[in-house]
Amino acid sequence: MARGRTETVLVTRFDDGRSRRVPDDLIVEEPLEIRLDDHLVTTTMRTPGNDFELAAGLCFDDGLLAGAPVATVRYCGTGSAVETAFNVVSVETGGVAPVPTPRLSTTTSSCGLCGSASLAELAERLDALAPSEPIALDILAKVPARVRAAQGLFDATGAVHAAAAFAPDGEPMVVLEDIGRHNAVDKVVGRLLLDGALPAERLGLFVSGRASFEIVQKAWAAGFGTVIAVSAPSALAVATARAANIWLVGFAREGRFNVYAPEDAR
Amino acid sequence: MARGRTETVLVTRFDDGRSRRVPDDLIVEEPLEIRLDDHLVTTTMRTPGNDFELAAGLCFDDGLLAGAPVATVRYCGTGSAVETAFNVVSVETGGVAPVPTPRLSTTTSSCGLCGSASLAELAERLDALAPSEPIALDILAKVPARVRAAQGLFDATGAVHAAAAFAPDGEPMVVLEDIGRHNAVDKVVGRLLLDGALPAERLGLFVSGRASFEIVQKAWAAGFGTVIAVSAPSALAVATARAANIWLVGFAREGRFNVYAPEDAR
Repeated sequence: MARGRTETVLVTRFDDGRSRRVPDDLIVEEPLEIRLDDHLVTTTMRTPGNDFELAAGLCFDDGLLAGAPVATVRYCGTGSAVETAFNVVSVETGGVAPVPTPRLSTTTSSCGLCGSASLAELAERLDALAPSEPIALDILAKVPARVRAAQGLFDATGAVHAAAAFAPDGEPMVVLEDIGRHNAVDKVVGRLLLDGALPAERLGLFVSGRASFEIVQKAWAAGFGTVIAVSAPSALAVATARAANIWLVGFAREGRFNVYAPEDAR
Repeated sequence: MARGRTETVLVTRFDDGRSRRVPDDLIVEEPLEIRLDDHLVTTTMRTPGNDFELAAGLCFDDGLLAGAPVATVRYCGTGSAVETAFNVVSVETGGVAPVPTPRLSTTTSSCGLCGSASLAELAERLDALAPSEPIALDILAKVPARVRAAQGLFDATGAVHAAAAFAPDGEPMVVLEDIGRHNAVDKVVGRLLLDGALPAERLGLFVSGRASFEIVQKAWAAGFGTVIAVSAPSALAVATARAANIWLVGFAREGRFNVYAPEDAR
């Protein structure tokens, strides 16, 4: 894709009482309509790039594929403008996947109306992961810096999240960026899905921000045994990771971190 | 509301090769179903607290009220558990507001399929603001630290965004926190709406993170003449602020910042 993911504008920079005009690189944000077998799933604001991964990963993470293999992913916009043509993506299973219910929000519409109901609904769809050999803690401590080195869009704009899948030796295998934290994770899961590399039980998932319920939900769907977040998890994210047998590591910065799950981590 | 907004868990903290068990305060994340005159609008994950403001603000920011005054806001959950009972909120206009279309995603479903279409659709609904007297730049520079001093949940958890409305002298008038950046803004707008203080043309809006298209959209709907973001804006957010006559300030940290809109800021 030749479409730009950054855009340069002139801004006025104030520093120490002085002002000057400087160029500034901004991250691009465009809507993407995601369809499954041409049925509308959702529209999300995203940074263009890896759109097929994003669409496939979102359908997978939300359980919409229900085990159906992805036959192909294609752009299907009808507009003549490049932006419009490339802002509609359909994930195709040849009708094997059930017809999706459009998502009403960032949570699934059937997720219940309290945190424990959200978790219970998820546990109905997903089995707890087999307890996995934990990745060595000194290896986990080095992952954030390794991923950071691959965050090219962040270097340019300072305004973009990253997600990464990393190997048991801490080496990042896939690093993808997006203005949306959830999109970045969907892109990584989608990449693994299209590569036939799911479930990701031997791999870890890194996210450059916080770990919300939805991030852990996506990790669980993809089968990651470990999740590292640079910032804090929510209470519901911790409860979900504990239920799923996922190692959840938060506030991972400069070699320090907290282990939130399992409950009895040592 | 006596419901907790933080929850304490025991975690294992690794630091410099040593581990110890310590208590850690987590931010609570629960779903909230928002209705308008008892019609479903959306379900959003949020931090409990100021739910009425969140529901009213979201309906207002999305243009769902269409000028209808809010008669009342009430909890209408039917579950017997406290969590369930307080996780459904209806904004009531006595049927004056049009029946809402449920939101399909974080963007409005009719927003078009490219950034410029999203902006055009917004410009159809909202008039550009009257160019306002800019708030003095030395005052803007002090807003982030003033709001930071009122971010109590952030102090406890390190995992929560804040939004604030501030006066022309830089004094924060309303500071509200939520695990979701958009929710925090909706809460602030909802508070002003319920106080009869909209449009907010003389006020500024502060957000503790990045300024995406949606953040600027909400600011425009509420009539804020100035938006300050601690982090970067997206390209579409800048284009939107320029179209709306909103002063958009980003990367506001330690007295430095960039002015992204208007285009010819001096």
